[in-house]
Parts: sequence; structure tokens; C-alpha cells
Amino acid sequence: MISFENDYSEGAHEKLLKALVETNMIQESGYGEDEFSKKAMDQIREVIQCPTATIRFLVGGTQTNQIVINTMLDNYQGVIAADSGHVSTHEAGAIEFSGHKVLTLEGKEGKLDGYQVSQYLNHFYQDVNHEHMVFPGMVYISYPTEYGTLYTREELELLSRVCRKHEIPLYIDGARLGYGLMSDSSDLTIADIAKLSDVFYIGGTKIGALCGEAVVFTKNNEPKHFVTRIKQQGALLAKGRLLGIQFLTLFSDNLYFELSAHAIKMANKLKQLFIDKGYQLYIDSPTNQQFFILSNKKVAELQRTVKFSIWESYDDAHQIVRFATSWATRETHIQELSKII
Amino acid sequence: MISFENDYSEGAHEKLLKALVETNMIQESGYGEDEFSKKAMDQIREVIQCPTATIRFLVGGTQTNQIVINTMLDNYQGVIAADSGHVSTHEAGAIEFSGHKVLTLEGKEGKLDGYQVSQYLNHFYQDVNHEHMVFPGMVYISYPTEYGTLYTREELELLSRVCRKHEIPLYIDGARLGYGLMSDSSDLTIADIAKLSDVFYIGGTKIGALCGEAVVFTKNNEPKHFVTRIKQQGALLAKGRLLGIQFLTLFSDNLYFELSAHAIKMANKLKQLFIDKGYQLYIDSPTNQQFFILSNKKVAELQRTVKFSIWESYDDAHQIVRFATSWATRETHIQELSKII
Amino acid sequence: MISFENDYSEGAHEKLLKALVETNMIQESGYGEDEFSKKAMDQIREVIQCPTATIRFLVGGTQTNQIVINTMLDNYQGVIAADSGHVSTHEAGAIEFSGHKVLTLEGKEGKLDGYQVSQYLNHFYQDVNHEHMVFPGMVYISYPTEYGTLYTREELELLSRVCRKHEIPLYIDGARLGYGLMSDSSDLTIADIAKLSDVFYIGGTKIGALCGEAVVFTKNNEPKHFVTRIKQQGALLAKGRLLGIQFLTLFSDNLYFELSAHAIKMANKLKQLFIDKGYQLYIDSPTNQQFFILSNKKVAELQRTVKFSIWESYDDAHQIVRFATSWATRETHIQELSKII
Amino acid sequence: MISFENDYSEGAHEKLLKALVETNMIQESGYGEDEFSKKAMDQIREVIQCPTATIRFLVGGTQTNQIVINTMLDNYQGVIAADSGHVSTHEAGAIEFSGHKVLTLEGKEGKLDGYQVSQYLNHFYQDVNHEHMVFPGMVYISYPTEYGTLYTREELELLSRVCRKHEIPLYIDGARLGYGLMSDSSDLTIADIAKLSDVFYIGGTKIGALCGEAVVFTKNNEPKHFVTRIKQQGALLAKGRLLGIQFLTLFSDNLYFELSAHAIKMANKLKQLFIDKGYQLYIDSPTNQQFFILSNKKVAELQRTVKFSIWESYDDAHQIVRFATSWATRETHIQELSKII
Repeated sequence: MISFENDYSEGAHEKLLKALVETNMIQESGYGEDEFSKKAMDQIREVIQCPTATIRFLVGGTQTNQIVINTMLDNYQGVIAADSGHVSTHEAGAIEFSGHKVLTLEGKEGKLDGYQVSQYLNHFYQDVNHEHMVFPGMVYISYPTEYGTLYTREELELLSRVCRKHEIPLYIDGARLGYGLMSDSSDLTIADIAKLSDVFYIGGTKIGALCGEAVVFTKNNEPKHFVTRIKQQGALLAKGRLLGIQFLTLFSDNLYFELSAHAIKMANKLKQLFIDKGYQLYIDSPTNQQFFILSNKKVAELQRTVKFSIWESYDDAHQIVRFATSWATRETHIQELSKII
Repeated sequence: MISFENDYSEGAHEKLLKALVETNMIQESGYGEDEFSKKAMDQIREVIQCPTATIRFLVGGTQTNQIVINTMLDNYQGVIAADSGHVSTHEAGAIEFSGHKVLTLEGKEGKLDGYQVSQYLNHFYQDVNHEHMVFPGMVYISYPTEYGTLYTREELELLSRVCRKHEIPLYIDGARLGYGLMSDSSDLTIADIAKLSDVFYIGGTKIGALCGEAVVFTKNNEPKHFVTRIKQQGALLAKGRLLGIQFLTLFSDNLYFELSAHAIKMANKLKQLFIDKGYQLYIDSPTNQQFFILSNKKVAELQRTVKFSIWESYDDAHQIVRFATSWATRETHIQELSKII
Repeated sequence: MISFENDYSEGAHEKLLKALVETNMIQESGYGEDEFSKKAMDQIREVIQCPTATIRFLVGGTQTNQIVINTMLDNYQGVIAADSGHVSTHEAGAIEFSGHKVLTLEGKEGKLDGYQVSQYLNHFYQDVNHEHMVFPGMVYISYPTEYGTLYTREELELLSRVCRKHEIPLYIDGARLGYGLMSDSSDLTIADIAKLSDVFYIGGTKIGALCGEAVVFTKNNEPKHFVTRIKQQGALLAKGRLLGIQFLTLFSDNLYFELSAHAIKMANKLKQLFIDKGYQLYIDSPTNQQFFILSNKKVAELQRTVKFSIWESYDDAHQIVRFATSWATRETHIQELSKII
Repeated sequence: MISFENDYSEGAHEKLLKALVETNMIQESGYGEDEFSKKAMDQIREVIQCPTATIRFLVGGTQTNQIVINTMLDNYQGVIAADSGHVSTHEAGAIEFSGHKVLTLEGKEGKLDGYQVSQYLNHFYQDVNHEHMVFPGMVYISYPTEYGTLYTREELELLSRVCRKHEIPLYIDGARLGYGLMSDSSDLTIADIAKLSDVFYIGGTKIGALCGEAVVFTKNNEPKHFVTRIKQQGALLAKGRLLGIQFLTLFSDNLYFELSAHAIKMANKLKQLFIDKGYQLYIDSPTNQQFFILSNKKVAELQRTVKFSIWESYDDAHQIVRFATSWATRETHIQELSKII
């Protein structure tokens, strides 16, 4: 059975595995103090064109969101996010576990709007009762969003300006960052992401790595004793080399972007297949996650030969489904899919 | 420069890497629902001779302690531990981060004593003010301890009886479990560990894996919605296969125990080297961590050619140092060391 | 200047003060173990017609919400509340501070609807990803609501049935409970509240006491070691007598209900005044909080001689304002107000 | 039956009750914004000779410790305290509830020693693993201690210097502050307390008030948005006047110190009674808590006619007991006691 269930169904890109094998018996210090991690940080700093950035490697996305948000917020602050944001919905309360409220605003196709955020912030401070409320202390967005959509440069610049005006950080969840940047619709580079955000993370798990996310503090704003905070939240990896070696490989020879471009190419083909066969898009996603509206009957039929995700119910007779491509998607799978649907 | 700095200086045993490479492109579901994880659980259940055990794979040791302790305790309870226990000292407050107090008792060579724990529990309930105090809700021990020492079967049985009498779980931190069980001094098997504890974990990170610890609930006592709790604490790995494949390999063909036995053999050689050269043992450790008392001058001299850990100050002129062997220790390194010291 | 700013502008009803003075030098044990608290609990159990209820006295409303919600939820659960609920908005993140998410649903005039809650719960369990989400573990409503509105018996019965079907507690925040029950529009008694809820609290602070809220667990469902949990959350009052004596007095000779009825009588007069002068109601509240739409100019004019609350902006030229009566409202103040507006 | 069980057995000093009654119907804003609270703050600033101090009124002692410690510490820090400190033992884990570890040092008669603290701090920073440990971020002491003992000026000055050298605040828990300052053995004034500490609290509950503690930030160091933090921790009192009026009265006409002196006078008489009858002191306490060693038989005999606290077991045949006097202790009770013992 072929699977388009998600973008973490396979292991890692072969170059990463090869690097792990080749460096395996080199003795290194633990906890991110290894030479590979240091080189990977240098490499990333160069690629993102932000020589002063501080970079840390963490294992997974929810963990990264929990740590970044908890360490950058003051304890009386919450984080603004779209109601469909990963932190709002699918992290089992990880943000609240660390004591912070997620302040949800209604998203449009998964996106927040700078005017909307600005209005929220203004209203908050005008409210005579705001001292009895959770202070907004950060804006969280994902690029691409949970619906596969993208912010334009103009939209991101506006959000960035609003955050700076109010002196709160803009945090970009880049679990699928490469798939956003390599989209035909993107008008942003990774250097733009670094410039316009205060902190972001480069997702490795979904783009070629066994695990790993690279947190980037772009404005000399790494929280004090950040390593201790990572340890305190149970997230400090003993063999930091595992993350360092993988990111070093991903950020050598443009690999991260090539892998991302491959997923986009596969997604475009997949989308076209569905369109050609007359299926309805739920949303016109320009990235590696594609959403379609299928009849319940068709869903049941397809599930016999291909794995995909049920996103949500559309109406009594239809479902919204998600097909995801990735760095690992094989052309042969797309061809098989074309026969099935 | 050779290193005896710790037992996580190298990557993973080659068989684990091979298994990762060979299975790499098989598509699997995420979050521990992959086939490898399921097989690994079966295999472990068989090896520990506990067919009803529930097993979960986590990434690291502090994370595992934080999750096990937080999910098994009621919110008004704390965990009893030796003052030298990992949870008491070197987890940056991870237990307190999740709201629980570590109730420290004075350890002897890193160990708690059943009578001592029993007395503590009795005193607690006799204290008229105990409703204003943190209730002891679990006993945490490590096997081997942070000083490399081991509980005897008799000692462990007593602790187990005390815990059962008071209806609180006994939790064994097995970050280095194999190194304890394969010690010449051990009179326990992994099946004994499963039988005498209520929950324990099998350390992978320090015994041949890139990362990974296997939590074992031995008494039909997995906390409700445990996967959700793992997610909530930011610790649910997307590619659970990474852990499943490694543990499946470690628990096939006795590999885990062979790797452990190798480290013990290396440790015994290393210890003998130091004894032969007239160095003083700080503690007579029967496992892979060896502690010596060296003069400050000797420490400085050795540091030029070999890496090891400064444990603590012994007196103004001496340091306690730790040399650790592991599954990866090469005989040639022991030989080099013999020339150096 | 007269004030209708809120319902906690004065001290306590004179009978409560008298009781405090008269019992002042009687020596009592602390922490709620005093005789007055015990008698007050008996008295309340009788009035609410729930002989098996467990009752605890706490100091304030947010504190009560924080403790009740945190101790009744499992750690992986959140609390369902209207988006205008006190726990959702004006508690500075007290619920999240204790690790729980507030799962907000859109309220109608401050109220949740049983069908809406039922649908939410059904959708949650149908969602294939619900193990990665916060489990709904309680329904929180306020009676009267933050907009002064009331649930009918039928509405409350439906909510109660939905909660029981899903085996989650229904919690009623009764900060202004008396003002709800004594409203002309109420078709509920305090015994109904006890019967239909799993836990509720009787507000003292806003109805005649210096401070104090009485938490009532109605279904033999007080959380284990609840006193320890109160202490742990910093809320255990040393001189529990302060709360016991006041509640004993409030629940003797029908005082609590008489005081509540007085506030309603005053509110009705106040509302009529505004209606008579042609002002527009924002909401037709049947309880002690009255909401009007005033022009910005009128607001500024009134603020010179009377205190009231700005609720929110209605449009560029108008404000929603709140006038609150209470047990302490004097007829003379209503008369003065009639001259001012 | 007479009681020396504790120093919170009665209500409040009559002057405080009188003030509450007289001001009862004055309409005031809530949450500490009332005129009485403001005047009380001014009065305290004058008495402690610290015109720049920021003062906040809270309800109880554990609550105050929880809030002060949580808001003044960074999240990766813990608080140093004696093993017998209230925060270490009798707060049911309130400090850990807010995420912080209590770093206990062995106390001598309940006291920490400046050299000991200095050594601890130096060792911490010399430890190569300290980034994996809880950072010491505050020193907590109580004056008087839980054993009734007092720091001398010299001892306090040393602690103060050590804290300043390491740039961490010195926090004095003054639950019984007056009883310490009015002791014959004290060589400190309340102005000294303000000068030598960074934050302290003046206990009201145990010295004449129904409830209430006054937190004093002495070095322009009130945590940001402190009122919001109080609210977030469920501790913001709606009728702040209750605290304001009481502290205003206590700090007018020297009342706080007179009440304290009375308790000391009574304690001295009580202690002399026991000495005269040949009882053994457990500790020679110069304040209002007196500790004796009584045979089990004597304990049982006395318990029939007088209430007191069992502190802990001394040996199989003896108990350590505590007799507490207070602002409310009547001479006639001391006389009765002399006949009983």
C-alpha cells in the first residue's frame, strides 16, 4: 500500500544516514557541544545570511514550540495564534502545560492578518480591565500554515512591523519551512524569514531528517541560560551530534532546498491528477499538503489502496482529506495514485 | 585524544545503524504506531518475561523521568529519591517544572535503604501536620546508581516490599541498566527488575543507541491517555520508527546484553590499570563508571591527552574524577590509557 | 460621589460584622477546623437540601475557579467555557497557570447551550487526531453569567444531562448566585443548582461578606486530599473562622436570599429609571448587573457624579456601560441617580 | 479549655474590628485601589523608613511566599532555604507548584549562615555541570525562624552582603516579624529589615489581623505587572480594603509593635513557668513560640486541660511540644497554665 498520509512516513535522506554512519565512531562531547553541531550552526548562519543568529537544535516540533514560547514569554503573557495554529489545536495543551494561554484569533485559510493582530493589541491596551487579562507577548504563525498556505512578503512585513511596534517577538513555526520557500507561490527567501522574524525554526523531521528542528534566534535574543531551560523541559539530547550531523548535511550543497523542491514538484503533479479527474480542491494549497473534498464512498474506496489523512468532515456526505508529499515521495507512487483515483 | 568522558561519546552500534538504513524507505505511521515499535515492544516483553507489560519509547533520560514521575504521581505528591539521584541534582529542576517536589533522603554510595524509606513513610503519616506537607507518592532509585553502585537482590526486594506496603510505585531509572545487570557483582536479571519494580526504563542512549529509552509499566499501570501526556510534555517523536527500530535491534540476539558486557569488561580492565599504578579508588564501582582520586597536578597532566569527567573536589589538593567505558570502548584506547597514566 | 461601579464596593453586611465581633476572642483551631465553619457547612447542606455535600470555604472567586478546575480535571484535560466566561477572560490566565486549557465555545448572551456542548464533545471523540488534543474534562458555566443573564431550568437540565452522558462534571460559578436565584426571571432554587451540578460555589464576596466563597461538591466527589491541594495552591486561610462565621450568618435566617432580593429590587428600579429616560438597554439583564448603551458624551457627563463601569466600546460614538447594584445599595443612591441621568 | 496551640486562634485586635465597622459603608474601588490601602502603604513606608518601597497586601503566608518567590525568580532558578524553613516543609509543595525547586541547606536552630550560603553559591558556579542544575536565585530566611530563633544584626548583614555579591535577592519571611523585633534578644529594627533585605513581608495574620500580609519590595524591585501576577495565582482580593484598613490600623499609633511586645511578655512568663517547674527547654527561644521536652505521660495529662502543638518526637519516651503566645494571650490564661503544669 502506498502512503500519502503525512510527510514523516520514511526515515531520512540517504545522505544524512551516510553522514551518521561515517562519523559514527568519532568521539564527541554531548549536549550540543560537539563539533558537528557547531559547524551546522555556522552553515545555517551563512545560508540565512544572519551572522549574529544563535542556533539550537531540538528534537521535535511541539517540543520546540513549547520551549521557544515558554522561554521567550514573560510568565504573565500568552501567545497570539490563529485558531487553526498547531499550538492552538494539536499539541495536547503543551503551551498551557508550561503555564501560558494561547490567545486565538480567527485565521483565514490558516493565516493571521497584520491588521487583525494590530487591532487586537490596541484593544487589549485600551481595555480598562487588561491588568486582569493575559498580556499578549508574542505572535505565532506557521509558514506554510497547517492548511498549506503561505504568507506573502507584504503580509509578513506587515506582521513584522506590528510586532516591532508593540515590542513583542514574531515567531515563525517552520516545521515545513522548505516546502513553503520552494513553492512556486513563495516570494520569500530563508534570509527574509530570518530578517522579518525574531525567532523561527527550520523543520528537519518533515524535510529529510530522522528528527530535529533548528531554532534560530535572529536578533541577539536567545533567552538567558537557554540550555538549562531545554534541560529543565526534558528536551536536551545527550547525543547532540545526531542533530548536528543531520543539519550539517541538510545545509550543505543546498540539500535542504533540493529536497523541498522535490516535494513541491510531486505535490503539483498530485494536485493536477486530482484536478484532471474532476475532484474538488478544498483549498488551493501551493505547498506539499493538498486538500480535497471527497465523497464518503470515494474515501472508503481509496482507503483500500492508498493511505491519506481524513482532515475533517465537510458535510454529511463528504470529507476533507489531505494528501502529503515529501522529500521522499517517489514518482512511481504518483503514477500508481493516478491509476487508483 | 581518546575519551572516557562519558558513555555517550559515539553514535550507535553498527547493527542499529544498519537496521535504520535497511528499513529507511519503508512507509510507516508516526508517533509510535509503526510496526517496528510494535515488534520491539513484543521482543522486550519476552526478554523481561512480563507479557502484560506496557512499553513506550521516549527520546532521553531526563524526559523519561519527568514524564513517568509526573504522570504516575497525584498532583499533591512528590517523589522520594537519594540526594545524589539524577532527579535530585542534574535535571535542572525538570521534576519541579512539572509541579512535583523531590523528597530527598541521604543516600549511601548513591543508594536508598528500605528501612530508611519505611521510616520516612511512617514518620510522614504520624506527623500531625502531614496534610500541610508534600505526600510521598513514589520511590525513585537508579540501577546502577550515579556512583556506579548496585542494589543487591535483597536490598531491592526490601524496597519493593516497602513500596507495596505503602501502595506507592517503585520506579527504577535504568539509564545504564545493562551495565548494572552485566556487572560481575549483580545478582539480578532484567526479569527481576520487571518483577520488583512498578515501572522502570531501559536506557538506550548510553547502551548502543543514537537516542531512546524504553519505559516499561510492569503492573498494568500505564497512566490514562499516556500518549496524550507524552505529547503534552513535548516528547512525542513523529518518527517513532527511529526508536522502534533501534530497540528491536538491541533486543534481538541478545545484543543489548552483549554490548553491556563489553563495557563491563573494559571497565574492569581500566580499573585494574589504575589500581596497578597505585591510584586510589573513590568508590569501588562494579559497573562502567569508575571513580578515582587524583591529585590536581595529575588531573592537569592527564587532561592533555585523555578526556574524562571532573566529578567533584575531594580536598584542596585532590579531585574525584570519573572514567566511563561503554559499548563503544575500544581495547586500543585502554592500551593507550595504560601508557598515559 | 455615589457608585454603581461593582457589587463589592462596601464592606460586609452588619450582621456578619456583628458576628465577627461577638465571637472574636473565642479560641478556635485554624485552617477550617473551627466550630463555626463546621456549623456553616451543616447549615448550607440543609439549605441546599443535599445532606451528603462536601463544603469548603475559600477566599475569592478566581482562586476558587483555579482550585476547583485544577483539582477536578485530569492533567490532560481542559475546561469548556463560554468565550465570555470569567475563566476565559478576566482571570489573568489563572487556569493556564495550573496547566489547563480553557476550551472556549461561542456564548450567546454569555451562555453555553447544551446542544452546542454535546456537538463539541461528539466531534472531539470522532476526530481521529483527538489523542493529540486537549480532552474536554468539565463544563464551566456561571449563574448568573458575566452579562447578568440566567439559564432556565430546561437549559440547565440539558447541560446537566449532556455532562452526565459524557461523564464530565458540570461546574457552576456562583459568584453572584443569590442575585441569579432571587431574580424575577429565575425558575431555579439553590437545591436545583445542587442537584443539577456536580460542583458549584456560593459567592460571598459579592453578596454581603468581606470575602469568601463556599465550594460545594454535590456528588461525593471532593478531590482526594483537597485541603492539601488548597494549601499547595497557596489558598488555605489560617483563620478559617473568618469564612465560617460569615457563611454561618449568611445562611441563618434566610439572610443570603434577603440580601440578594434587595439587590434585585434595586436593579429593577435602576433599570426602569434608564428605560423611563429613554436609554437603550444593551442586554435585558434580569439580575443585579445592568448594561446600557450610552453616547460617549453622556458617559463623560455622568462620570462626573457617579461611578460605573465601562464594559466595552459599542461603536465609535457609544459605549456599553454597566451599573451594578448589590446587597448594600441604598435607595437614596437610586434616587440621586434618577436626578443625574 | 485554654489554648496555646498557635498564634492565630482568635479573631483580630478590637481596634482593627472597630475600624472595619466604622468604614464599612464607604464605597471604595476593589483590588487594592481603595484609599485605605494607599494610606496603609504610606504609613508602612514611613515606619520602615524606606520612602521608595513598593507595598502590596496579600491574604496569607504560604500564598505570599509562593507569589514572591515565583515572581522574583527566573524560571530556571530555585530558592535557597533552611531545611526547616516553612517553604521547605509546611507549604504542601506550593513553591514546586509554581515550578521552582527549594534548594535546602542544613539549618542550625532554623537559621542559615552567611558562610554556608556563600560556600554553596561558590561551589555551584565552580561545578562544571551547573548548567544542568537549578540555579540558586534567591535566599529565603524567616525572622523569627520556625524554631522561634533570631538572626543577629551581624548574621543578617553577612547574609545580605553574600546575596548582594552574588546579585540574588534576600527574602525575609516575616510571618511573625513583630514577635522577632520586640524580643529582648533582637538587635534589629524594622528599618534594618527593610535595609538589609530585598523583599520581606510583615505578617498580619499572626499579629492582630483577621488575615493579611504586607509584602515590601525595598529596592525598586517589584516584579513587572505584579498585580496581574497576583491575579494569575488566584490571590487578588476583591475587597482590598479588608487588608488596607487592618494594616492602616496596625501601623497607626505603634499598635503592631505594642501587640508584638505583649506576646513576648506573655512568652517570657510562660517560659519562666516551665523553667521554674523543672521542665526542659528544647531550644531557648527568645520569641513567642516556646519549645519544651515533655514525657509522653505529661503530654497526655496536659492535653486534657490545655491545647498546644506536638512538634516532633524527641525520643521514645518524650515529645517536643510548642506553646505559642500572641497579641491575644490573656494573663489569666498564663495563670491557669501555671496551675496545670
